[in-house]
Amino acid sequence: MSSRGFGIDESRIWSDLMGLAEITDPARPYTRRSFTPLFQAGRDWLRGRFAEAGLAVRLDPAANLFGRLAGTDPTLPTILLGSHTDSVPSGGRFDGPAGVIAALEVVRTLQDDGRRLRHPVEVVDCLAEEPSDYGLSCVGSRAMAGLLTSEMLDYKGPGGERLGDAIDRVGGDTTRLAEAKRSDVAAFLELHIEQGVVLERSRTDIGIVTGIVGIVRLEIVFEGEAAHAGTMPMAMRRDAGVAAARLVTFVSERARALADAGRGYVVATTGVVELAPNAINVVPQSARIVVDARAENGAVLDAFVAEIEAASLRIADETNTVRERCAVLSRATPAACDPALRALLAEGAAARGLTSLSLPSGAGHDAAFLSRIAPAAMVFVPCREGRSHAPDEWAEPGAIAAGTVAMLEAVLRFDARPPKD
Amino acid sequence: MSSRGFGIDESRIWSDLMGLAEITDPARPYTRRSFTPLFQAGRDWLRGRFAEAGLAVRLDPAANLFGRLAGTDPTLPTILLGSHTDSVPSGGRFDGPAGVIAALEVVRTLQDDGRRLRHPVEVVDCLAEEPSDYGLSCVGSRAMAGLLTSEMLDYKGPGGERLGDAIDRVGGDTTRLAEAKRSDVAAFLELHIEQGVVLERSRTDIGIVTGIVGIVRLEIVFEGEAAHAGTMPMAMRRDAGVAAARLVTFVSERARALADAGRGYVVATTGVVELAPNAINVVPQSARIVVDARAENGAVLDAFVAEIEAASLRIADETNTVRERCAVLSRATPAACDPALRALLAEGAAARGLTSLSLPSGAGHDAAFLSRIAPAAMVFVPCREGRSHAPDEWAEPGAIAAGTVAMLEAVLRFDARPPKD
Repeated sequence: MSSRGFGIDESRIWSDLMGLAEITDPARPYTRRSFTPLFQAGRDWLRGRFAEAGLAVRLDPAANLFGRLAGTDPTLPTILLGSHTDSVPSGGRFDGPAGVIAALEVVRTLQDDGRRLRHPVEVVDCLAEEPSDYGLSCVGSRAMAGLLTSEMLDYKGPGGERLGDAIDRVGGDTTRLAEAKRSDVAAFLELHIEQGVVLERSRTDIGIVTGIVGIVRLEIVFEGEAAHAGTMPMAMRRDAGVAAARLVTFVSERARALADAGRGYVVATTGVVELAPNAINVVPQSARIVVDARAENGAVLDAFVAEIEAASLRIADETNTVRERCAVLSRATPAACDPALRALLAEGAAARGLTSLSLPSGAGHDAAFLSRIAPAAMVFVPCREGRSHAPDEWAEPGAIAAGTVAMLEAVLRFDARPPKD
Repeated sequence: MSSRGFGIDESRIWSDLMGLAEITDPARPYTRRSFTPLFQAGRDWLRGRFAEAGLAVRLDPAANLFGRLAGTDPTLPTILLGSHTDSVPSGGRFDGPAGVIAALEVVRTLQDDGRRLRHPVEVVDCLAEEPSDYGLSCVGSRAMAGLLTSEMLDYKGPGGERLGDAIDRVGGDTTRLAEAKRSDVAAFLELHIEQGVVLERSRTDIGIVTGIVGIVRLEIVFEGEAAHAGTMPMAMRRDAGVAAARLVTFVSERARALADAGRGYVVATTGVVELAPNAINVVPQSARIVVDARAENGAVLDAFVAEIEAASLRIADETNTVRERCAVLSRATPAACDPALRALLAEGAAARGLTSLSLPSGAGHDAAFLSRIAPAAMVFVPCREGRSHAPDEWAEPGAIAAGTVAMLEAVLRFDARPPKD
């Protein structure tokens, strides 16, 4: 795809991605955890790139890093583009950085072509998108949406440091946190690797995200009765492991049925199963499972969670066990992407000969929070075997370039729209 | 029940049981592991009791400890009674010792009454019935059955010591191991706590064991594909955890159906379930389970194991996973108890006003090995809530006394039978 001549500079994107990737804990590539000296080194590097591109660099009070290109019409709100540069431990080189560098490349291409947009354009590196050591993800985009609470600022991280103090330490000013909330964003666009296999397996250039799923995590504990595996007759057992197994099967089968029912994307996973005592010759006394349920449609998600809760009670009854616990560990509501922006992305992609398809995002992103304060949309690019959050995370240079082109085209189209009354 | 006047001395049994229980690792009551100095101290104590009862004490080449009372007819084979004095770590005071002390009490009662039997009677403390630190259980009773192989003698224990050397260290002589095999046993009787709840819940004095189950342990590993819990659509998943859950359910439901089918006792337990990576937001890549299946009827057990193996393949196919492993970790064949001895136990119990019922043993016992070389039978006594292999294992003094009386009556009846031609 690099030969198609997108206008944007594929090799410059790639060089930047590989350059940023070098700023990693060498013992655990690729690791650049938010709030660490390595994270700050990455941002120093990024400030250099912003400055080279002629952007005005600033940190907001939530320590989000911006590079701004002024527009020709000072009355117009901002087109915001970007993602994040922090990583999970032993993560990859693309989850986050691809979106920041693609955003930077859009602006550089405009600069190179001598094109001035009516709207200002800002490239953003959102603070701490990944689950941080302070127990919170999407710290910066929450703040931009006005959703970073003072309770959250009191979360404690390494050495007992408050999250708020950590934000201040990396250049924020949480005494002025309210000013981080944005009301001047006309549109937010984020490019990201898919972290799934839909684009790769369908050989599609880009994905246009319909919405970001809501996520509910349920912890369920069944309590039965430990008993000798030989001497306790089947009819007298209270086997917590069997109760858990039945619920795992229910969750999987029901999610599959809901996914096939045509009311949007639905997935559910039981990733954690823990038996006690977990011994060969003892009937399990207790079983703890954690279910992660996700859906695009909030009503579908809520109904599914209610079904799981009801099924856990029914199964406990059927297995003579007790459903000791059924707790919501976390709940995130679905975020819809803006239909007008999605249409501009599709038009832009088509105009440049790129194939696209609509798909949901099964993972959370900064765009989910920014959609609360502005029209927001996402461009997905294929990644190898869907792998992510691992050192072998990989996206082809041409794939990232294609996504960048689609974003550039959408920005141009957005900027050219007649002003609303 | 202590007021019924069984002839045997309930308080003497209890005093001995509590005395032997004092010989324990004080940090982990009740622990008297085979081959340890504590085990040897317990045996020294037991030798004292044997001597007090006027029994001739000896160790055989497999370090089984015997106390022998001669019979009046030197041509008759031995009536062997006993169990074991070793324990699991943090075990109880009854699993094993109850059978040894009850056997001793039978002989003491005969002595007290001045009754001489035609047959010699031996009380045995079988070496290392519990799974030992050398990876083998029922060491002594295997040897008596001629089933302790030279390969087993090479099993290594703590510090790399050979099992054979450990046997020699506690008084055996494995160069003469073949002499431990018995061909002079007329009958073996073992009293044991039930380790289950059937007698307690049915308020029955004693259980007469129909047979000791065969046990097959299967390790099954499903290999799927790790994937993002949000981005991998349900239809494309290869979820090893779901495969495991389905098999756990199958094993439980099928065991229940077989137990209800009237072809003898059947139980099956999946006590171990381990997912990898066992993370909330990752579709499980692999799942390892261990199934413990037991049945009285060998053909039923073999057919059940074959069904589990077939189900694991079918489930792997249905879930797009691979059944990476399906291995038999261990296999023990069922052992039937001798019908004539069971009848004598039932008659003896009824004659003394004790209620009894027939039940299988879901756990393994020395009697399983001794049944290979002699008619063997077992008397079960109720234990509180079926608890065993734990410090709160408990049997009432009267319950043990009742079982001892039944055993005494069976011995008297056996001895009085007209000699076979």
